[in-house]
Amino acid sequence: MSLKQVSSAKSFGGYQKVFAHKSKELDCEMKFSLYVPPAVEDGHKVPVLYWLSGLTCTEENFIIKSGFQRYAAQYKICVVGPDTSPRGCGIEGEDDDWDFGTGAGFYVDASEEKWKKHYRMYSYVTKELPDLIEKNFDFVIAGKRSISGHSMGGHGAIISALKNPGFYMCATAFAPISNPTQCPWGKKAFSGYLGNDEQSWQQWDATHLVTQYNGPYLHLLIDQGSADPFLKDQLLCQNLVKACAKAKIPVVYREQEGYDHSYFFVGTFIEDHFKHHSKILYS
Amino acid sequence: MSLKQVSSAKSFGGYQKVFAHKSKELDCEMKFSLYVPPAVEDGHKVPVLYWLSGLTCTEENFIIKSGFQRYAAQYKICVVGPDTSPRGCGIEGEDDDWDFGTGAGFYVDASEEKWKKHYRMYSYVTKELPDLIEKNFDFVIAGKRSISGHSMGGHGAIISALKNPGFYMCATAFAPISNPTQCPWGKKAFSGYLGNDEQSWQQWDATHLVTQYNGPYLHLLIDQGSADPFLKDQLLCQNLVKACAKAKIPVVYREQEGYDHSYFFVGTFIEDHFKHHSKILYS
Repeated sequence: MSLKQVSSAKSFGGYQKVFAHKSKELDCEMKFSLYVPPAVEDGHKVPVLYWLSGLTCTEENFIIKSGFQRYAAQYKICVVGPDTSPRGCGIEGEDDDWDFGTGAGFYVDASEEKWKKHYRMYSYVTKELPDLIEKNFDFVIAGKRSISGHSMGGHGAIISALKNPGFYMCATAFAPISNPTQCPWGKKAFSGYLGNDEQSWQQWDATHLVTQYNGPYLHLLIDQGSADPFLKDQLLCQNLVKACAKAKIPVVYREQEGYDHSYFFVGTFIEDHFKHHSKILYS
Repeated sequence: MSLKQVSSAKSFGGYQKVFAHKSKELDCEMKFSLYVPPAVEDGHKVPVLYWLSGLTCTEENFIIKSGFQRYAAQYKICVVGPDTSPRGCGIEGEDDDWDFGTGAGFYVDASEEKWKKHYRMYSYVTKELPDLIEKNFDFVIAGKRSISGHSMGGHGAIISALKNPGFYMCATAFAPISNPTQCPWGKKAFSGYLGNDEQSWQQWDATHLVTQYNGPYLHLLIDQGSADPFLKDQLLCQNLVKACAKAKIPVVYREQEGYDHSYFFVGTFIEDHFKHHSKILYS
């Protein structure tokens, strides 16, 4: 499990790095970003927030567009951001669509023959990557983890927390695809990766999973822009909020007036999410 | 002079917009970004900071990568960011190099026959654009202007202020190309746009211009990363700092330990620059 540092740039007193490694789960080379807050240079050990990005993104978008480093530095949190899918696996059609295949792994483990060898983003994100981080970076407090993400990655963050009770101390999301079995993006991805048995899709859908959840308090926080053009047909946040209410899972859901789906929205509210994660990670 | 709004996204309570218009100076369609701080919705009039970007950039880089909107909102400043050159003018060779032609206008008015019709970024940035902004946006306080920029744009900001005493209330820069007549990027650009008479280059070089300056106090602030790979051969900030000292022009020059040339560096110190501009623009 050898890690190769691809880049390192000083940012808010810490370092924004990118690493590459050969992933066992995905059977290809993967990159991830890692922000080392300045507290580490002062000898502190720090918790880790995992950030999952949305459709078409790589490990770069969040580190370039959100401005999170200011808050990761301030709140003493290491931030790890994986890519959004395996890349260059040579699977026929992997690069045909922007919302399926490359850049669109949907944080599931594929079961369809064609995809199942490489498209295992769920296992990569919830097992291989945390394991690799906690083994390779001794400034990380093992077990002090939380997760967040945007759009497809917001859903990935929520299902990762729901499917692994206690593994993440908290989960938050920006404009998550909240009920993928019921929206065009999700139906396309799930039928491709998981096949046509829609029953099997349920174990990858946050709105279903929340009704089965039986674990510690999740500290769920969701921000959603009211002017997000995908809200009504793709994101369906209300379905998740209603399912949470029915299952008596507390969630803070905030519809932010006038904001769209972009990183201008994420950047505006990312400080709040770091405050929230910090409070729980350092509790 | 008709303006077309290309995009608008809510950001930190205000709006990050992009406009397109037909430029007279450049004889082509140009885009610029404009951030409207939330104070405007509350009825305030606000000053304008002009931001000039570096080589290869468009009007997008700064608005996506720097995180400035938080501070523009907080300090009640409208921010205008032009593109870095004319585009699509059909000049032979305009797209051949990343450091000359498209994306590399160098904020000069070309005198060479081939370039002089379109490559007039100096006049565009210091005359046409401020005029257009102050005529079209009634929330802007006419005459309350300042200027900043990065790399090629840092130099553009400084020469714009030096060549127009009193027009900008303050000028700051991140890692400016400080003495272009003496570095490879500058020599290539100036010989291309201005011809081989090196004497004529002096009127576009900050390190020369500062020795001629005779105007109001400039409030110069320059941040430079000590780990910037371009510092020694291309940026030559010390030449400008020494010329300032010789000419008794006060400048705050800060070498920031360990930072490189990227927007991770700009983003880290952009708040300081907004504080500085705000203090002067609202004095």
